[in-house]
Amino acid sequence: MSSPSIHGIIGYTISPFSADGERIDLDALGHSIDRLIDSGVHAIAPLGSTGEGAYLSDTEWDEISAYSIQKVAKRVPTIVSVSDLTTAKAVRRARFAEAHGADVVMVLPASYWKLSEAEILAHYATIGDSVGVPIMLYNNPATSGTDMSVDLILRIFKHVDNVTMVKESTGDIQRMHQLQRLSDGQVPFYNGCNPLALEAFAAGAKGWCTAAPNLIPQLNLDLYQAVLDNDLTKARALFYRQLPLLEFILKGGLPATIKAGLRLVGLEAGNPRLPVFPLGEAQRSQLQQLLTVLR
Amino acid sequence: MSSPSIHGIIGYTISPFSADGERIDLDALGHSIDRLIDSGVHAIAPLGSTGEGAYLSDTEWDEISAYSIQKVAKRVPTIVSVSDLTTAKAVRRARFAEAHGADVVMVLPASYWKLSEAEILAHYATIGDSVGVPIMLYNNPATSGTDMSVDLILRIFKHVDNVTMVKESTGDIQRMHQLQRLSDGQVPFYNGCNPLALEAFAAGAKGWCTAAPNLIPQLNLDLYQAVLDNDLTKARALFYRQLPLLEFILKGGLPATIKAGLRLVGLEAGNPRLPVFPLGEAQRSQLQQLLTVLR
Amino acid sequence: MSSPSIHGIIGYTISPFSADGERIDLDALGHSIDRLIDSGVHAIAPLGSTGEGAYLSDTEWDEISAYSIQKVAKRVPTIVSVSDLTTAKAVRRARFAEAHGADVVMVLPASYWKLSEAEILAHYATIGDSVGVPIMLYNNPATSGTDMSVDLILRIFKHVDNVTMVKESTGDIQRMHQLQRLSDGQVPFYNGCNPLALEAFAAGAKGWCTAAPNLIPQLNLDLYQAVLDNDLTKARALFYRQLPLLEFILKGGLPATIKAGLRLVGLEAGNPRLPVFPLGEAQRSQLQQLLTVLR
Amino acid sequence: MSSPSIHGIIGYTISPFSADGERIDLDALGHSIDRLIDSGVHAIAPLGSTGEGAYLSDTEWDEISAYSIQKVAKRVPTIVSVSDLTTAKAVRRARFAEAHGADVVMVLPASYWKLSEAEILAHYATIGDSVGVPIMLYNNPATSGTDMSVDLILRIFKHVDNVTMVKESTGDIQRMHQLQRLSDGQVPFYNGCNPLALEAFAAGAKGWCTAAPNLIPQLNLDLYQAVLDNDLTKARALFYRQLPLLEFILKGGLPATIKAGLRLVGLEAGNPRLPVFPLGEAQRSQLQQLLTVLR
Repeated sequence: MSSPSIHGIIGYTISPFSADGERIDLDALGHSIDRLIDSGVHAIAPLGSTGEGAYLSDTEWDEISAYSIQKVAKRVPTIVSVSDLTTAKAVRRARFAEAHGADVVMVLPASYWKLSEAEILAHYATIGDSVGVPIMLYNNPATSGTDMSVDLILRIFKHVDNVTMVKESTGDIQRMHQLQRLSDGQVPFYNGCNPLALEAFAAGAKGWCTAAPNLIPQLNLDLYQAVLDNDLTKARALFYRQLPLLEFILKGGLPATIKAGLRLVGLEAGNPRLPVFPLGEAQRSQLQQLLTVLR
Repeated sequence: MSSPSIHGIIGYTISPFSADGERIDLDALGHSIDRLIDSGVHAIAPLGSTGEGAYLSDTEWDEISAYSIQKVAKRVPTIVSVSDLTTAKAVRRARFAEAHGADVVMVLPASYWKLSEAEILAHYATIGDSVGVPIMLYNNPATSGTDMSVDLILRIFKHVDNVTMVKESTGDIQRMHQLQRLSDGQVPFYNGCNPLALEAFAAGAKGWCTAAPNLIPQLNLDLYQAVLDNDLTKARALFYRQLPLLEFILKGGLPATIKAGLRLVGLEAGNPRLPVFPLGEAQRSQLQQLLTVLR
Repeated sequence: MSSPSIHGIIGYTISPFSADGERIDLDALGHSIDRLIDSGVHAIAPLGSTGEGAYLSDTEWDEISAYSIQKVAKRVPTIVSVSDLTTAKAVRRARFAEAHGADVVMVLPASYWKLSEAEILAHYATIGDSVGVPIMLYNNPATSGTDMSVDLILRIFKHVDNVTMVKESTGDIQRMHQLQRLSDGQVPFYNGCNPLALEAFAAGAKGWCTAAPNLIPQLNLDLYQAVLDNDLTKARALFYRQLPLLEFILKGGLPATIKAGLRLVGLEAGNPRLPVFPLGEAQRSQLQQLLTVLR
Repeated sequence: MSSPSIHGIIGYTISPFSADGERIDLDALGHSIDRLIDSGVHAIAPLGSTGEGAYLSDTEWDEISAYSIQKVAKRVPTIVSVSDLTTAKAVRRARFAEAHGADVVMVLPASYWKLSEAEILAHYATIGDSVGVPIMLYNNPATSGTDMSVDLILRIFKHVDNVTMVKESTGDIQRMHQLQRLSDGQVPFYNGCNPLALEAFAAGAKGWCTAAPNLIPQLNLDLYQAVLDNDLTKARALFYRQLPLLEFILKGGLPATIKAGLRLVGLEAGNPRLPVFPLGEAQRSQLQQLLTVLR
């Protein structure tokens, strides 16, 4: 299967809630999507970690999924995270997203019981058999509890036709080296670890999946452009300029920090769902300072 | 709050599915509960890790919860696991369990985004405020992604009135030492790591939360009795006798191994939900041998 | 090869230095050995971690080795640690110790470059071929940088005739279970992790290698006796009584804490060698309090 | 203190032994140094990990140190590793190296007992007070057992005047980001992890400390030159070209692989000291193939 041309800055969307936390605020979601696309991101990724996908009911998930795809309206590709603990529910979500027009579905092998390699492979194969769109395999042991080795990833790549892209979020650059080397450069990989943005591009990543464009889109885009222009000196300077913010949003938790940052720029998207706290006063003021410096 | 007298062998139940995996088989569940109680366990714990609680829909969860409590019918205490990713849903489950007659609710701080200590404390406090039954705090970083330090556990104990028991499943015996020492023996702790059964009792654990009584109840009970009888030599011999089976069920995953074992003894409870596989042929035959030796 | 009857409380000696840190104070060493033997320990172990073996010149090592063996004078067995980074030097030390009358030599596979299993096996085999006394294999990844699996340990046991005992210091009780199970109880194991003393004996350890008898010999001996008497309740109480001190000496570093403790009881043994600091004032006073409570 | 201009490719030397392993082969050492300098490396670093510094007697260490400095003869700077377990011996080595003309001394905080931050700081301060040459602080937890945080490194930098450079070998690129950010670019850092060569230069490393120039000097130098030329595309291609060899020498252990490689190109330097094995036949043939491809 040939994958659509997914590259560059892939912006994660938040999932805005009403003030009481009980309803989805579709209006705010629409604004946040327009802001990202207007700023120039190359793709939109709803319902990922930033989108609190794991904290939503099935009904809410469907609502956000359908609305986001329709709102993006093919201006850029939409990559919908469809991960779920059971294979059956992940299949249902993947089909739903495809039916509503998603260009790509992203799959993290969420787990409660540690999965064997055979179980992970079967999970991807079953999802792959259920949809016609490409799948971005997503490795993020810190949130999923499952660390897929490069060998396993390449095996899945080989066996499941529509797994055509890899998002790597271990933060270990050697994984990208292995993906590049062992596949002879045939596996497009994307970086999901913000403070690794410079090095991942240096190592050949095709894109950067990040929530940062909600707050500093131009710096993200400029870094990618500098790499395309083969200007390492400029890329390094741009990276170090945005690094304090990248570290802040990672350390503070993406839903909490991005929602707080959007509030600071005038887009009210509610708070994360408990037990996750919104940013405290000290952190909000630190975020304000970081953003001020960058504007 | 004074806790009910929870002690000894606390047996986890499986969640039986129909052959197509889509319905709950309440009949099989009832049989498995009766088997455990008839064998002599001191308490019943539905919907834990063994019970595939994380893999159930809300409707299924309610169905199993209500049925289990009613089936136990106060013959022994029932400890219902009510963990959920959001505080709101964990509260709902805790209230549901209490309303249906649960004696204790068990809470693991499930997480996708890493939780701060303040977030974890607030999670327990909110659940504690919502119910009148005692809470067994459950620490199991391997499945929850959150490791609560002994300091944090003791702080929760102090601040949340109805947190009155701790289930420790890190497998690190030093945690139990710390719980004992730093609380001057005032925090009753329970062991959730099967291959630590002997040492946890040696260190003073009040009970052992385990799925093993589904397969080898007498050996589990005898080990506990030997400890009560202050007979270390006998306890050690009993422990080493059952250790191969304890390691097997841990390594193979509790839902897969316990369901396979029940099938071997004539109780059909279906398979685990995908992506978790049922035991393969080689493992089934190994399990059969382990069980044969122990009978 | 049949091993001598090594069991019970195996006391580590410190290596006393003169006030300027440059000479070995053999007099103080002799006193410390007599104190240990008079208190009733079942064996003496010079030049281990507590003895700062790694910080000594070859000349100093020889001096302490020869003197200690002669001073013990077969009142109890002497187990000399002969570990060194190169095989050649470890062989030299093992022969030296044997020639001077050591009953057992202890070997940790010290490493700078990570060793393969074949390299570790050859290291033990070469030392084994060079001496006639039994070897206690010592696993302590925290200080050696090499973690020997139970499988590897059993392979060494099988291939090297005079490796007849295992000292396990990972702090993971499951290693002892595996040693017991996989060898059908044929491999005598000894505990080297102080806060695991109770559980190691519960699991069947034949002895406890510890520096604690320099400070609290009677409590150490009583714990062992309670286990021999099959009195778990008493063993548990004795263990929790001494646990604060055991944790203190582990956390503070054995040479620093034991030398400070000996000074508090009137035996001046100098300070550890820099960069290791002697205890600070706050720690010394904490140690004094811990010791006072236990007397 | 202003540091000499240490930058670019810093080549580690091996320590050649005679065939029986007992003597230093100074002739071979001289040839290996000449080869490195003739190939264009920007500095020479004897007695590091590659040089088996930890496996030498004091006499051997002195012999190699004095001979290497004299042989380099200021053609490029010489950076001598003077690490030792005790502060006193590290001071002696640092003074010896300075007296014989070393331009820089490198210090790893070797440890048997875990060192506190105060102990590490005092270790560096004492060595710093003892010599007049600059010190390159070296962080390599995998071999030293001590991981210095960026905070601690910066504190040492501030307190010890002649600590003017940092060699970072954790393999975690975020450490270099922190060194750059928290020091406002005032701390020159050098990469000691071969498979991180591309990304370390991308992140701003001033140099690469590596044994690889013994085998593939031109590729190492070309990578550095491409970075100086701001040609990321070329640097990336050069990096991936040499990566298989870089990974091979890391995984196989530097003394074993570099000595085997030198033998393949006609320079006999003996074997590593036991327990470290020389390369086996299969690995030698793999190394030959890797080298053939690169020539």
